[in-house]
Amino acid sequence: MLSKAQISLITSLQHKKFRKQHGLFIVEGVKSVLEFLSSDYQVHSLYTTAEARTKMGNLPQKLKCITITTAEIQKISVLTNPQGVLALVHLPTVESFDWALLRQQHNLLLDDIQDPGNLGTIIRTAEWFGINHIVCSMGTVDAFNPKVVQATMGSLARVKISYTPLAGFIDQSEMPTFGALLEGKSIYKTDFGNAGLIIMGNEGNGISDEIVEKIDHPITIPRIGQAESLNVAVASTIFCSEIARQKSEHG
Amino acid sequence: MLSKAQISLITSLQHKKFRKQHGLFIVEGVKSVLEFLSSDYQVHSLYTTAEARTKMGNLPQKLKCITITTAEIQKISVLTNPQGVLALVHLPTVESFDWALLRQQHNLLLDDIQDPGNLGTIIRTAEWFGINHIVCSMGTVDAFNPKVVQATMGSLARVKISYTPLAGFIDQSEMPTFGALLEGKSIYKTDFGNAGLIIMGNEGNGISDEIVEKIDHPITIPRIGQAESLNVAVASTIFCSEIARQKSEHG
Repeated sequence: MLSKAQISLITSLQHKKFRKQHGLFIVEGVKSVLEFLSSDYQVHSLYTTAEARTKMGNLPQKLKCITITTAEIQKISVLTNPQGVLALVHLPTVESFDWALLRQQHNLLLDDIQDPGNLGTIIRTAEWFGINHIVCSMGTVDAFNPKVVQATMGSLARVKISYTPLAGFIDQSEMPTFGALLEGKSIYKTDFGNAGLIIMGNEGNGISDEIVEKIDHPITIPRIGQAESLNVAVASTIFCSEIARQKSEHG
Repeated sequence: MLSKAQISLITSLQHKKFRKQHGLFIVEGVKSVLEFLSSDYQVHSLYTTAEARTKMGNLPQKLKCITITTAEIQKISVLTNPQGVLALVHLPTVESFDWALLRQQHNLLLDDIQDPGNLGTIIRTAEWFGINHIVCSMGTVDAFNPKVVQATMGSLARVKISYTPLAGFIDQSEMPTFGALLEGKSIYKTDFGNAGLIIMGNEGNGISDEIVEKIDHPITIPRIGQAESLNVAVASTIFCSEIARQKSEHG
């Protein structure tokens, strides 16, 4: 049985302000919750229907599990079709950057991505291609927004997400920067090397002027047809795939 | 001023049954409507607010234009934030396949794609990479669904979409078939040649057994991280991009 206070707490977590205040975010679905349980994240509590509980297997003994009804899950779920499993998870603590690691790999930088579905797809796709750190501008949509969490399909449990002013990050990194721009060298003729920062811009406005100035390698995805632009998650996909292709060729 | 009958007609077009019955579909937004006006499609009528009309430039004299209020556009729009421009466009007539053309190029085949956003993104991305014909299984979501039209960002005006049973199409094509599967040859080590059928499967179930049997080249996008799968629009993107890359290298 859920108290009014519990319902109020959980639904408040749909808003960033309250996620910060309580230090918690929502994860839904059997698969996603299991992935967070086996990750470095700390799961605070788990709400399941009796039926959905049977799909979860053995859970850590210390985990606070609350059995609720289907009617109750409807009240706290953000999904149109709730799966009967909802976890509250502690927000990760903000860590300082591990520069030694960052400088050995390709990292994705997102400059004010606004759409939760786009960010979620970018995180999921980046993880497929082995990118394990995404650095977001302060204006990028919050990765712990339930719509983003949902769209990552569990990948958020494994990809590290940082929010920081990008200009300072780029300066401190001393890494080569590759920016997705409409005018630039063909992505297929660019050597991405072993490490670098891949910068993707806002859905409507692209990369901000302040960051464009810091781009060493302006890169374009050559257009054959007449489409005016590519979706940012699609463009990010092409960068991740091309970097993976080059590594598979050299490796 | 909109009559009740007009409102009822337009809102009915959100459903496939009524699109078929009236032979019409909805296109919204200044840019998308202009792209349909300059395409092979026949625009039936245009509903705009007085303010939005000023953004449309010169329109064909014969075009039936109806000026409506902001309150009225809210009643007929499918968007959360209507842009004040909505056109009814005639569904294209079903043409027989131009086999001579099809056999010279790469064509995308979609096996029961369900999500309107995915189909719209696939159409937009395919057009960017110069793929001008997409062949959909009968179970694929309707490309003239307003959500799909919206997600194509105008590309639907230029990419040809056919619905046909895929098995018969593949047999008749006599073209090499490349299928996106979890087990197969690396996409980066596959020579896609000058022409072929690229087959993408349903979001949950992949390519159906009947079609898997007809795949000459099972192709995989190599996974580096632990993500369980890729979104089908993301996977389609990687195929379109890799084919474009190979052509740019040979050409």
